[in-house]
Amino acid sequence: MKKLINAPDAVVQDALRGVEAAHGDRVRVNYDPAYVVRADAPVQGKVGLVSGGGSGHEPMHGGFVGPGMLDAACPGEVFTSPTPDQMSEATKAVNGGAGVLHIVKNYTGDVMNFDMAADLGRGEGIEVESVLTNDDVAVEDSLYTAGRRGVGVTVLLEKICGGAAEDRRSLAEVAELGRRVNANGRSMGMALTPCITPASGEPSFELGENEIEIGIGIHGEPGRFREETRTAAEVAERLVTPIVEDLPFSSGDMVLAFVNGMGGTPLIELYVMYAEVAKLLEGHGLQIERNLIGNYITSLEMQGCSITLVKLDDEMLRYWDAPVDTPGLRWGV
Amino acid sequence: MKKLINAPDAVVQDALRGVEAAHGDRVRVNYDPAYVVRADAPVQGKVGLVSGGGSGHEPMHGGFVGPGMLDAACPGEVFTSPTPDQMSEATKAVNGGAGVLHIVKNYTGDVMNFDMAADLGRGEGIEVESVLTNDDVAVEDSLYTAGRRGVGVTVLLEKICGGAAEDRRSLAEVAELGRRVNANGRSMGMALTPCITPASGEPSFELGENEIEIGIGIHGEPGRFREETRTAAEVAERLVTPIVEDLPFSSGDMVLAFVNGMGGTPLIELYVMYAEVAKLLEGHGLQIERNLIGNYITSLEMQGCSITLVKLDDEMLRYWDAPVDTPGLRWGV
Repeated sequence: MKKLINAPDAVVQDALRGVEAAHGDRVRVNYDPAYVVRADAPVQGKVGLVSGGGSGHEPMHGGFVGPGMLDAACPGEVFTSPTPDQMSEATKAVNGGAGVLHIVKNYTGDVMNFDMAADLGRGEGIEVESVLTNDDVAVEDSLYTAGRRGVGVTVLLEKICGGAAEDRRSLAEVAELGRRVNANGRSMGMALTPCITPASGEPSFELGENEIEIGIGIHGEPGRFREETRTAAEVAERLVTPIVEDLPFSSGDMVLAFVNGMGGTPLIELYVMYAEVAKLLEGHGLQIERNLIGNYITSLEMQGCSITLVKLDDEMLRYWDAPVDTPGLRWGV
Repeated sequence: MKKLINAPDAVVQDALRGVEAAHGDRVRVNYDPAYVVRADAPVQGKVGLVSGGGSGHEPMHGGFVGPGMLDAACPGEVFTSPTPDQMSEATKAVNGGAGVLHIVKNYTGDVMNFDMAADLGRGEGIEVESVLTNDDVAVEDSLYTAGRRGVGVTVLLEKICGGAAEDRRSLAEVAELGRRVNANGRSMGMALTPCITPASGEPSFELGENEIEIGIGIHGEPGRFREETRTAAEVAERLVTPIVEDLPFSSGDMVLAFVNGMGGTPLIELYVMYAEVAKLLEGHGLQIERNLIGNYITSLEMQGCSITLVKLDDEMLRYWDAPVDTPGLRWGV
């Protein structure tokens, strides 16, 4: 295993020190329990947004803390859920009196721990709501998941709900918007190579020299099938078709198209993929109103990509376009 | 070779189609000869900034085209200089009457072709100046270079000169500023793994299972030495010390610290590296006034990182902070 780390068990803590050193003007880092929080939290009268999950998916979630997006993010160890304690402390830290929304990817550990943290928050008199993301159409149940996995939609939902919270919408409104984004979003991913967690030092799975896996999860969970290497056009078709058929998206729909890198894939390849995705969506009569291309929800050094489509309505579009000022997404400011 | 491409000889063209599909609201793509140009070019009365080089380093340079940064970028084939024809056409396309600045990384092919393009531009009555970047302290001459290689400083210089050009500074002033940024900037990189160019299908070099290379170039050119895998702290020391000693930077200097990923390294590792770099710079008495962390000048899927320091003066700082609106760097708008 070759990684730029000091020790396998120090990766998360060391990266948090980097976040603090780099972005200490805008975020605070709490180490025990670990969370990253807006420097100006709690923002009075604003719904606080808290997300979190295992580390190894950066910039998600810690890179999305800041005005217009998350108020706090709780990093677990690599590919391991954060603890209820982390989530509960983060919930308290961002409570500005308008309630707190938990944004939870559908993995069993995350769901259970955020549930406990919500109860703990309510015990402290904080109004807490949760939104679950489960947008991955690849498989119905997975290694760490009952039901579909939460993947790329999470990034888009955090941005859109962040815009709504900044606009001082109520907790119920922000939660409803988040559920709508998830309900209108679908994703699917694929891998060319596995990733290696620092703790295990071993590839998360094995793929042959000329083999790819379609429908992979962000922790290397099995997908739908493996096959020989394909052209970008064929890979795009294998991801876009199940997504479009699942919602189903209809001709004339306005979508946000998100081509995400798994961490180890060069940007030039993501643009090759985007060209194919755009062509396919045009064929389906879908109108790409906005796009996002890059490494936003990753699986360490895995090579591969995922595609996410969200059918946009005017409200989602407005809050997508709203200013955001985080290390990972930044515009309008 | 596993890559998300359609064919090795179509990568650059296909990626350009992706750029056009994704960012066609802000840039135009010309295919023959190939360049990416601001949609509103030429901007009257503004110095036009043109850069370019081999593809495979994305987002550099095409991802830096837009208000506040480059007016045009010329992509060569992967790791291959663009042609004088591309550069010359781009120069004409961005000429708004205030002259054109070529930003050239010090590789023999780039230098020669930009020289010819400058002559061609002057032949058309366009005032053309050039700035050369040669910030890599690792080696004095290299595979494709007489003198030092141009690397990370290029990104920072394009941003700072872009701010000055947007501020309607003269060609002589923008060129002088660019030379000052280069003269005050130093970089060094390292690799954990090689990259594979689509054309060759083979790793650019071989590294042992537990071996890293210190001082690597962005095309896999040999560095200073190879050694056993090291901790992030030790790797940071091996990169920071030669950089700091080379300028030399002095205690109390205000610097921009840039931790760059080579393309295949996860962001969590870049933050681990940044924590170490910040600690080392503090030990040298250097004040990190601004920072940049992420994949900005890459080598396809190479795993590794580079560190760049630029000693900032007030003018550089002002133009670094100025608004920029490109796919790769975006703030203030």
